[in-house]
Amino acid sequence: MAKNTTLLLQKLRGFMQSSQYGGPIQAYIIPSCDSHQNEYIAECDCRRPFITGFTGSSGTAIVTEMKAAMWTDGRYFLQAAKQMDQNWTLMKMGMPKTPTQEEWLTEVLPAGSKVGVDPFLFRWESWKTFSSTLEGAGHSLVPIQSNLVDLVWDADRPLPPQAQVKVHSLHFTGQSSAEKVAQIRRKMAKVRVQNLILTALDEIAWLFNLRGSDIVYNPVFFAYAVLSQDSVHLFVDESKLEPGVHSHINQGIEVTLHAYDDIQKFISDMLAENGAKTWISANSSYALMNLIPKQHQYIHNSPIWQSKAVKNDVEIEGMRQAHIRDAVALCEYFNWLEHEIPKGYLNEVTAADKLENLRSEQEDFVSLSFDTISSMGPNGAVIHYKPQLPTALTLNTQEIYLCDSGGQYRDGTTDVTRTFHFGTPTQHQKECFTRVLKGVISLATAVFPEGTRGVLLDSFARQHLWEIGLDYMHGTGHGIGSYLNVHEPPHLISYRVGPGSEAPLEAGIFMSDGKPLRLFLHLFLP
Amino acid sequence: MAKNTTLLLQKLRGFMQSSQYGGPIQAYIIPSCDSHQNEYIAECDCRRPFITGFTGSSGTAIVTEMKAAMWTDGRYFLQAAKQMDQNWTLMKMGMPKTPTQEEWLTEVLPAGSKVGVDPFLFRWESWKTFSSTLEGAGHSLVPIQSNLVDLVWDADRPLPPQAQVKVHSLHFTGQSSAEKVAQIRRKMAKVRVQNLILTALDEIAWLFNLRGSDIVYNPVFFAYAVLSQDSVHLFVDESKLEPGVHSHINQGIEVTLHAYDDIQKFISDMLAENGAKTWISANSSYALMNLIPKQHQYIHNSPIWQSKAVKNDVEIEGMRQAHIRDAVALCEYFNWLEHEIPKGYLNEVTAADKLENLRSEQEDFVSLSFDTISSMGPNGAVIHYKPQLPTALTLNTQEIYLCDSGGQYRDGTTDVTRTFHFGTPTQHQKECFTRVLKGVISLATAVFPEGTRGVLLDSFARQHLWEIGLDYMHGTGHGIGSYLNVHEPPHLISYRVGPGSEAPLEAGIFMSDGKPLRLFLHLFLP
Repeated sequence: MAKNTTLLLQKLRGFMQSSQYGGPIQAYIIPSCDSHQNEYIAECDCRRPFITGFTGSSGTAIVTEMKAAMWTDGRYFLQAAKQMDQNWTLMKMGMPKTPTQEEWLTEVLPAGSKVGVDPFLFRWESWKTFSSTLEGAGHSLVPIQSNLVDLVWDADRPLPPQAQVKVHSLHFTGQSSAEKVAQIRRKMAKVRVQNLILTALDEIAWLFNLRGSDIVYNPVFFAYAVLSQDSVHLFVDESKLEPGVHSHINQGIEVTLHAYDDIQKFISDMLAENGAKTWISANSSYALMNLIPKQHQYIHNSPIWQSKAVKNDVEIEGMRQAHIRDAVALCEYFNWLEHEIPKGYLNEVTAADKLENLRSEQEDFVSLSFDTISSMGPNGAVIHYKPQLPTALTLNTQEIYLCDSGGQYRDGTTDVTRTFHFGTPTQHQKECFTRVLKGVISLATAVFPEGTRGVLLDSFARQHLWEIGLDYMHGTGHGIGSYLNVHEPPHLISYRVGPGSEAPLEAGIFMSDGKPLRLFLHLFLP
Repeated sequence: MAKNTTLLLQKLRGFMQSSQYGGPIQAYIIPSCDSHQNEYIAECDCRRPFITGFTGSSGTAIVTEMKAAMWTDGRYFLQAAKQMDQNWTLMKMGMPKTPTQEEWLTEVLPAGSKVGVDPFLFRWESWKTFSSTLEGAGHSLVPIQSNLVDLVWDADRPLPPQAQVKVHSLHFTGQSSAEKVAQIRRKMAKVRVQNLILTALDEIAWLFNLRGSDIVYNPVFFAYAVLSQDSVHLFVDESKLEPGVHSHINQGIEVTLHAYDDIQKFISDMLAENGAKTWISANSSYALMNLIPKQHQYIHNSPIWQSKAVKNDVEIEGMRQAHIRDAVALCEYFNWLEHEIPKGYLNEVTAADKLENLRSEQEDFVSLSFDTISSMGPNGAVIHYKPQLPTALTLNTQEIYLCDSGGQYRDGTTDVTRTFHFGTPTQHQKECFTRVLKGVISLATAVFPEGTRGVLLDSFARQHLWEIGLDYMHGTGHGIGSYLNVHEPPHLISYRVGPGSEAPLEAGIFMSDGKPLRLFLHLFLP
């Protein structure tokens, strides 16, 4: 049933009119993301689902004085149509007649309109292009400091996550926070930068050797950090820190703690005082970027990207051990499946639950690293398929079973895809399996110069499929964190060219090489 | 001996002061290129060599009221230092302390200076960035319509090439000019474009099925063309057309001939009249781009790029036959070398001459397709090495001989690299040769989806070298024309990401796969 949004929209439009909140504005944008561009978001940040009723992971809503529209992609057309009421127009992205958000705004808004958005929820780069398109059409994009959806949500809004922030000991990290700070400062000095603003939660967790559980599957906590050549500042809700954190983060360096919400004021004050070159990632929000005068901006990939991706010896050994224990759980699981599937009572969800139980018995297990993709037959071809009970398929011995899953262990993060047939596969299935496996082995055993970009290795995984006219329409591998995010930027092995596939590979980087084991094969030869 | 440029610079500075030529300007830029961004240029376009004395293929000169400086790259540092007199400062590109042209201008010019350049010799894209950097420093980049170096050169300047323009018959092209025009018009209609401006000489030669010899190795002629949905205009010196050309180009279409120099006035008049969307490549000169009002510009790769690259059945058969005859000449040559080298009288130049003779005996041979790279031992590792008599090495049986050469035949263009040892190669040489060969075979036999970009295939050629820590620091393959330019844009097989390595490959495109047969191997493993 669709959610009734009439009252919510009425309230939202009220706030859009109010001069107290920077209005009147003629349109308000509600993106899906949070202030840190996290892949997964906390419940209190699910503003677009709250206001539209649509719960899918991807979509942008725009509300004007008279209309309300929501853009999402092909994975979600059916779900969105079902979950949204008559107040909302579904904008099917990728369909030829669907207007872009800018086109639609230009069509429905009166001349000279103001389009508002929470500046924390818009990447600076997106702001630039969106704003210049709107300006070309005679409108303007304006930052609205208070989030208007939060005002509507009010008392019902879930509290921000309050999970404890814990020390991640040297035993697992292999490098102290003080050493990491020194390493990053050297990178800053090399490009003559005085300040560094960090907004990515996994970078902050890495730098301070702390872990949290504010975000599902990602052992991170909400925080900002600012590093200068002579000071370190961490912006976090202090009540969340477990007792040992204070002395831990102050070993060899002095870390000043600030309230999470003080980040804007702190940056403004700091730049008013030291007015120096400040390193900030282009992925950061407009809200923070906008605080830095243009002549002081040093907009570049974070210096932590490459440092964090290249694991040290302790992390490498940890990843090895975590993978061994994870493999034990997987072997137990597949052995159990072999015996239980023929009995006919297992479905995709109950099987996935068993796997989680087996993983949780392993030492240093913390949580899964992403939703287990436990998929039977045709479901194996649905990208990021998440089995759910009413529609879960029964596991059988006639079709292929694909399991893409991983765990968070204190010593490492895993992401493993395995494809099984518990009966007798067809000749075609065998051939596909073998060719995928040959590709995976080609990539895993490839020798290449340090600094090679992932885009140059992607075809090794595809070549044996290409030979018989098969291909898969997604990347091959991604970086993996060390008890951090399972999708760790920037490194990718992909045919698409972008920052990820262009990032240089070097010894110590962990990449997945499992994606083509899925069933996304499609024929390109006639 | 260095060329004495004192008088030349004195005259040039006089013209820079003159209001008759758009002055006074405080600096004048002399690029290396011609108005069509040709890879090779005609003698009358060698303005930078004329004014500096430096004859290398790459370099940019800038003259101010007091100073004169010339930027070139590492290949040419020695030669430039030798050929330029005391009036000139050599700017060594790639060296840490060398200023960019913009930095240097900002340093030496008084505030609010005007920097002039012939707008035909500046790509529009380069103009944009150069101009905005100068403006940021308080100066401006201004187009100077008369080329000031030509005014200095005056009566001594070689005449523009007057080579005859010849019909390239349907027997070789397989597609009439009328059919090509219709095909391109369909591409224009698809993006709702009314006009198309063509400035690349090989595109014009292809479209009209004409060939010339205005540029060494490239069978093209100086011309512009403008195509609209209902008219075709060719801008060329009519006296160069052989008698059959008029009736040839007017078969099935009506082509209006104009003087070569009328292109600017024609475009202005046409747009004043039909004021419609006009397709022009970003590679075009600022002079032409600037004639098109912004709202009418459709800046995109030429629609001819992909059409010309995909050879039709007649062209494919022609390429096959041309390669067979070219291979006959090469076999005769290498057989001859095997007998003559031991006698000790051959050097790199005399050998190359013999090869040209053998090629010229083949049917439909027109010319070489580039300077023959005939290189002994260490010279094989010099990129684009051109042997010259005083320094040419004697061919011997102790070292590797590399020959990279090609021919222009009426039915096709060739580019072939072969590496020989006429004595007993070392174990290491044998291993390198075999691994290069394996890579070349991997690439040549690769099966891949239509539309795959060259960047995704490049590693196939490198993988067997990578295995033992070897690599080469240049691309692997490039597109080849059909009795047209031996480096035919846009397709490249390269590890570098750019428009060329991103261009989609499809059946019918001819690519070279010979570059790694050179000796540019370097070790990347410790």
